[in-house]
Amino acid sequence: MGAGLADMLLARERRRIEPLRLPEPLPLAAVPTPALLVDRPAMERNLRRMAEHLQQAGCGLRPHAKMHKTPLIARRQLELGAVGICCAKVSEAEMMRAAGIEQILITSPVASIDKMARVAALAADSAEIRIVVDDAERVRMLDEVAGAAGIRLGVLVDLDPRMGRTGIATGEPALELVRVVAGCSHLEFCGLQQYAGHLMHIEDAAERARRARETAAVGLETRALIEADGHEVALFTGGGTGTFDVDASITGITDIQAGSYVFMDEEYAAVGQGNRSRFDYFEVALFVLVTAISQPRTGAVTVDGGYKSFASDSVAPVAHDLPGLRYHFAGDEHGVLQLLDGAPDIQLGDRIRMVTPHCDPTINLHDWMVVVEEDGLVHELWPVTARGCSW
Amino acid sequence: MGAGLADMLLARERRRIEPLRLPEPLPLAAVPTPALLVDRPAMERNLRRMAEHLQQAGCGLRPHAKMHKTPLIARRQLELGAVGICCAKVSEAEMMRAAGIEQILITSPVASIDKMARVAALAADSAEIRIVVDDAERVRMLDEVAGAAGIRLGVLVDLDPRMGRTGIATGEPALELVRVVAGCSHLEFCGLQQYAGHLMHIEDAAERARRARETAAVGLETRALIEADGHEVALFTGGGTGTFDVDASITGITDIQAGSYVFMDEEYAAVGQGNRSRFDYFEVALFVLVTAISQPRTGAVTVDGGYKSFASDSVAPVAHDLPGLRYHFAGDEHGVLQLLDGAPDIQLGDRIRMVTPHCDPTINLHDWMVVVEEDGLVHELWPVTARGCSW
Repeated sequence: MGAGLADMLLARERRRIEPLRLPEPLPLAAVPTPALLVDRPAMERNLRRMAEHLQQAGCGLRPHAKMHKTPLIARRQLELGAVGICCAKVSEAEMMRAAGIEQILITSPVASIDKMARVAALAADSAEIRIVVDDAERVRMLDEVAGAAGIRLGVLVDLDPRMGRTGIATGEPALELVRVVAGCSHLEFCGLQQYAGHLMHIEDAAERARRARETAAVGLETRALIEADGHEVALFTGGGTGTFDVDASITGITDIQAGSYVFMDEEYAAVGQGNRSRFDYFEVALFVLVTAISQPRTGAVTVDGGYKSFASDSVAPVAHDLPGLRYHFAGDEHGVLQLLDGAPDIQLGDRIRMVTPHCDPTINLHDWMVVVEEDGLVHELWPVTARGCSW
Repeated sequence: MGAGLADMLLARERRRIEPLRLPEPLPLAAVPTPALLVDRPAMERNLRRMAEHLQQAGCGLRPHAKMHKTPLIARRQLELGAVGICCAKVSEAEMMRAAGIEQILITSPVASIDKMARVAALAADSAEIRIVVDDAERVRMLDEVAGAAGIRLGVLVDLDPRMGRTGIATGEPALELVRVVAGCSHLEFCGLQQYAGHLMHIEDAAERARRARETAAVGLETRALIEADGHEVALFTGGGTGTFDVDASITGITDIQAGSYVFMDEEYAAVGQGNRSRFDYFEVALFVLVTAISQPRTGAVTVDGGYKSFASDSVAPVAHDLPGLRYHFAGDEHGVLQLLDGAPDIQLGDRIRMVTPHCDPTINLHDWMVVVEEDGLVHELWPVTARGCSW
């Protein structure tokens, strides 16, 4: 019934997946703003750096697609050796699956039958779909749904890294839940997830590394406890862009769920400023292009991007490679760039590249990525296929 | 060239406009969450109340479609007597025009030739399209573009209500700009816009009314100055949900650009709490339905809506008609409901209706409105056709 409504929506959506190639390359001056810009060469370098780092460290990469929402990028990550991708929500996984992607881990538990039925439908469709669980009763419901669908569904037990968002407590409670999973005929226990999102943006690199090791140690103790009870723990997945290097060096962590490394943003720039390690590895490869449209006061200029073009959950956007500009949100549709010492002379009609505040929810505002190549021209548009797929 | 890229995008988008009628009505339990819910009877009452109030006051209504982004709602507003609609951006106007809407005022100035060409193309298509201007050089560019398109384009001069976002200063600077417009062969001066967004959420009703009258008085003095110079000022448009009653009572203001009255939100609830006047008129008619999916700690429960489901530029969402719950954002995909004194017993899988923090950017996150009728069942889905159209 619920799956019925979701099916109806998904059928109606039939969203574009493939790139839209322009008949001829266009300069940025031809791009209607606000526009989400991807610096494709920089993105490619980021993708390769992460892939190479983890390959050398002997750790897998399971990049989080909730960040880019774009199957074209997920495919490239898999081409470069990723062991699979992560999705936050079922509809996101459905969009990725529609683009032909097989290995998908859904990283957030679901609690209702309709969502479980959709997960089972995805898994029945020959794909390697797995989902996390953190509650015994939901595990039993999922087992029934998988049984009804005639499949055996792979599940990971989600550990709460003392963050209080999702997951079961480490130690005995986790072991108990693994036993419940192991007792289910239609579920297969595949391992553990432990994602410590609250550590990613700790500015001091040494402190961040210390906390990441401490958190991993607790999770790995639970892993040992579960193995001692006779359960194989094939996967221990977690970690993000803020801690990828630390996590990848820890024996027992099988793969890293990093997302933001593809594009980077101002939140991670702040982390990078503390120790340079983030931006030593990864470049800013994502921008929102805005246009100066009004100047009601001297000392400031109004641009055409506000809350509907930039995520507003964290810091403000920052003008890229231009000194003396400070962005202030000015409502849904506008921002005001304050002109400080050393600011360039901005004329109405000028276009400015802004580094995004937080890449995930910024991308989720836009329907298309405008893809800029080495020659500085736009060659393709990429549809953000899973945009808005939070359900 | 720029219009070329926009045309290409618009042609590829061909977005759904008409409702998606369900084969049979469904209960909320069948709705995949997070979902944007519309209480249609409450919405209809809000629409009628505003229409009737303004009709009695002898003032026009030009509702702002940037709030709902939904041609189906714009059509209903026009059926109930609105003199036209407002759009914030050109692509938004293009989507509304594609739905057959004729009278559109674009309320933000544009600064580049490509956007001007798109406005001219819209106006050439027999529709009654108008746009605001606030800069003499841009007026001359627009005149050339309109001439090249073989049309005469209606423009309003945008007055800055000392807010510093867009608009020209009242008094002589505004008069000078009107003279420039009047000297253009392909532009027609239609009047003035003065939108004082910074006044809408002043909590104290008397203070809000005082400031609204003061601001209107300055704008109307400028109107008199322009008329004394021999220019007809057919329109004086402005005002929003926060000041609609005050503005509608002022002689000389021809129409009100209110948007949020259709749905209301927590920002306006705060305004209403000060004096009750907002919620005396208008009901909350918009919600985001979320599901409880995890409970890693006692005293709190995690729901499946975060930054990608709720606008995060202002206050937090609030559980509707349930005491003892306090929402905290917990990342892109989750929120944590703190359980305080008197909180209901929430089980995993339970669905909770949340009042949105700020309706405009919340709606802009969602692709569909789930429409609930008097019987409490979902009968239709409405596409948010102009979602993401900020360009």
